Amino acid sequence: MNYKIALIPGDGIGPEVVAETVKVLDKIGEKYGHKFEYTKVLAGGCAIDETGGCLPQETIDICKASGAVLLGAVGGWQWDTLPGDQRPERALLGLRKELGLFANLRPALLFDELADACPLKPEIVEGGLDLVVVRELTGGIYFGEKGFKDTDLGPAAYDIEQYAEEEVRRIAIVAFDMAMKRNKKVTSVDKANVLESSRLWRRIVAEVSVDYPEVTLDNLYIDNATMQMVRNPKQFDVIVTSNIFGDILSDEASMITGSIGMLPSASLAKGNFGMYEPVHGSAPDIAGQNKANPMATILSAAMMLRYTFGLSAEADDIETAVKKVLADGYRTPDLYTEGTKAVGTKEAGDLVTAVI
Amino acid sequence: MNYKIALIPGDGIGPEVVAETVKVLDKIGEKYGHKFEYTKVLAGGCAIDETGGCLPQETIDICKASGAVLLGAVGGWQWDTLPGDQRPERALLGLRKELGLFANLRPALLFDELADACPLKPEIVEGGLDLVVVRELTGGIYFGEKGFKDTDLGPAAYDIEQYAEEEVRRIAIVAFDMAMKRNKKVTSVDKANVLESSRLWRRIVAEVSVDYPEVTLDNLYIDNATMQMVRNPKQFDVIVTSNIFGDILSDEASMITGSIGMLPSASLAKGNFGMYEPVHGSAPDIAGQNKANPMATILSAAMMLRYTFGLSAEADDIETAVKKVLADGYRTPDLYTEGTKAVGTKEAGDLVTAVI
Ligand SMILES: CC(C)[C@H](C(=O)O)[C@@H](O)C(=O)O
Ligand SMILES: CC(C)[C@H](C(=O)O)[C@@H](O)C(=O)O
Repeated sequence: MNYKIALIPGDGIGPEVVAETVKVLDKIGEKYGHKFEYTKVLAGGCAIDETGGCLPQETIDICKASGAVLLGAVGGWQWDTLPGDQRPERALLGLRKELGLFANLRPALLFDELADACPLKPEIVEGGLDLVVVRELTGGIYFGEKGFKDTDLGPAAYDIEQYAEEEVRRIAIVAFDMAMKRNKKVTSVDKANVLESSRLWRRIVAEVSVDYPEVTLDNLYIDNATMQMVRNPKQFDVIVTSNIFGDILSDEASMITGSIGMLPSASLAKGNFGMYEPVHGSAPDIAGQNKANPMATILSAAMMLRYTFGLSAEADDIETAVKKVLADGYRTPDLYTEGTKAVGTKEAGDLVTAVI
Repeated sequence: MNYKIALIPGDGIGPEVVAETVKVLDKIGEKYGHKFEYTKVLAGGCAIDETGGCLPQETIDICKASGAVLLGAVGGWQWDTLPGDQRPERALLGLRKELGLFANLRPALLFDELADACPLKPEIVEGGLDLVVVRELTGGIYFGEKGFKDTDLGPAAYDIEQYAEEEVRRIAIVAFDMAMKRNKKVTSVDKANVLESSRLWRRIVAEVSVDYPEVTLDNLYIDNATMQMVRNPKQFDVIVTSNIFGDILSDEASMITGSIGMLPSASLAKGNFGMYEPVHGSAPDIAGQNKANPMATILSAAMMLRYTFGLSAEADDIETAVKKVLADGYRTPDLYTEGTKAVGTKEAGDLVTAVI
C-alpha cells in the first residue's frame, strides 16, 4: 500500500533527525511491503527566510493532501529578534489550527537504560515511569480572542481562555479511550476552584467518564499536579488537560524522565490524520554536526504508523529496534556516559535500520 | 510599641500552628519590649459553618484595621462537596482582593538538615537552594471577567487573562528591589510566544529593569521554567510571574525543596500591610492531634516582622531559632527520620520559644 507523508524538516537539527527517520521508514517499507511517499515542505525559520512567512499556504495544502505529517523542529536564534508573534514557532500553532489537530499525545517514558539521566531520586521512579499527557491543542487561551483595552488601571492586554463543552468532550474521549488500552486511570487537571472554564471542563469530563465504568477518574488542580509530578509521578497513567496546562505539564513530565531526546509526540485530528514530531526543540547549537539524537523522531514515526496508518506491528518493530540499540550501549552525545558507545546521528539511524 | 495583628486560624491544623506562632511572637515581644495585639477572626470553612459565607465583612474590616494578618490555613473535606466557587479557599481570593495584596513572595529554601527529603538528586541541589517566587496576586485570569457564552461549537465558558501595564510595573518593582538585596538576578516567566498579555508583561518588565542596571534579567516561557525548576533550580534567584503561572511555579518550587512544612509566604499590599501564611494546607487528616509542623507559620511571622513591622533583628532571631531547633535534631512527624528526635506541634513551638 502507498502512504503519503508530508515531511517538515524545519530548522536546526530538524533536517538531520528527519533524514534518519526516513531511512528507518524506508526499511520498514521494504520489510513489510509498504511504500511511503514523502513530500518535503517548508515551515518555521526556513520558511520565513525563503517565503517571508513561517507557514506558507502550500505547506498547509500539501499537509492536508497527505495522510500524516512528520515534523523535525522549528525555531532558532536567527529568528529570536523577531517579535513574539512572528517567530518560527508560530508555524506550529498555524498547523495545529489549520489541520484540526485537537489532541496532543505526549508519552513520558523512562527508558531503563537511561534511568541515570532522571533528575529525580531513584526511589521515586523505581520500576520505571510510563504516563501519557493528553493535551487539548486547538482551543483555550492559545486560540481565544486577544487584544488590548483601556482599564481603570490604564492600558492593558488580554487573552481569553475559553472552552466549549464539545471541545472538552472530544479530548476527554481520546483520554478515556487511551486509558482503556493502558492502566485504566485518567487524571483530569484544571483550576476549577478559580476558573469558570475549568468548572465546565470538570463537569464534561465527569459526564464522559460515565461511559467508561472501568476507568478511575481523578481531578487535580494544576498547581497540585505540578507538585505530584515531582513527588510521585508513578501515580499517573493518562493525564488530560487544557492547552496551556498541558503545555506546562507535558514539558515537566518530559523533563522528569531525563530523556527528552527520546520522547515522541502525536497531534491528532478527527479521523486518523495526525502530525508527529519529537518533543525536543531545534537545538541550533549542534545543528549540522551529526550530534543530534534522532530517536525521538524515529519513535514519532512509530506513533504515526500506529495511530494514522494502523500499522501496529510495524510500529512495535521500530520501538523494539530503538530499545535494542540503547540496550546494546549505543548513545548519541546527549546521552553519552562513560562505558557506553558514542555514536552520531547517522550511525544511530543506521543502527536502528540494521536491527529492523 | 504596639503592633496590631489580625489572626485567622482557619481550618484543620490552622488553629494549632497559629497558636504556636503566637507563643513565639509573645516571646519576641517580651525580649525586645514590643506588644503584639491579636484579634482573632473567621475565614474559610469555619466561617461558612458559623456565618454561611467563607469571608465575613467583619473579618475584612478587622484585617484592614490591623497592621498585618497572620493566617493558618483554610479548607477541608467537610466542605469539599460545595461547588468550586463556594469553597473555603475562596476566602483567600477575597482577602487578596479586598486587602490589595498584589505581591506574593514565596521563598523556596532547602534546609541543610532536611536535604534528604528533597525529591531531586543530591547533585542537582548540592550547596543548597534559595530562590524566591514573586507572584502577582490580584490580577490576571484569577480576577478577570468570567462567564458563559454560545459559540460555533456550542455552549462555552470563559475566563479573561488580563494585565494592565501598571499592574505589571508594580510587581516587577517588587521583584527587582528584592533581587538587589539578594543575588541580583530576576527571571521573568511568561508565555510571550502565545499570549498578548505576556508580551505586555515582558515589555513592562524590560522597562522596569532599566532602573536596575546591576540586576540581570532573563525571560523564560512558563513551560521551559517548569522544566528548569526540576533540571537546574540553582539557576534561579528571584522569579517574577503572573498570578496563574506563579501559582504553578511557586508550588513546584516548594515541592522540590522537599520541606513544604517549613515554607512561609507573604502577600503584600502597597505600603507595609501584608498577610502572612504557611505554604502548606489545612491537612484535616492530622488536625487536632499535635502532629502539625508549626515552623512554616512561625517563619511566616518572621516575614511579617521584617516586611510589615520593619523588625529585622527580631525576624532574624526567629529564623535562627528555627534553624537551631532543626540542627538540634527535633522533628515533627512530617519530617521525622530515624535518628532524629520526634516532637509534636506544641513541643516544636516551645523549643523555638526557648531558644529565643
Ligand atoms: C512553541 C510553542 C508555541 C509551543 C506551545 O506552547 O504549544 C511549544 O511550547 C509546544 O509545547 O509545542
Ligand atoms: C486555593 C487557591 C485559590 C489558591 C490559588 O490558586 O491562588 C492556592 O492554590 C494558592 O496558591 O494560594
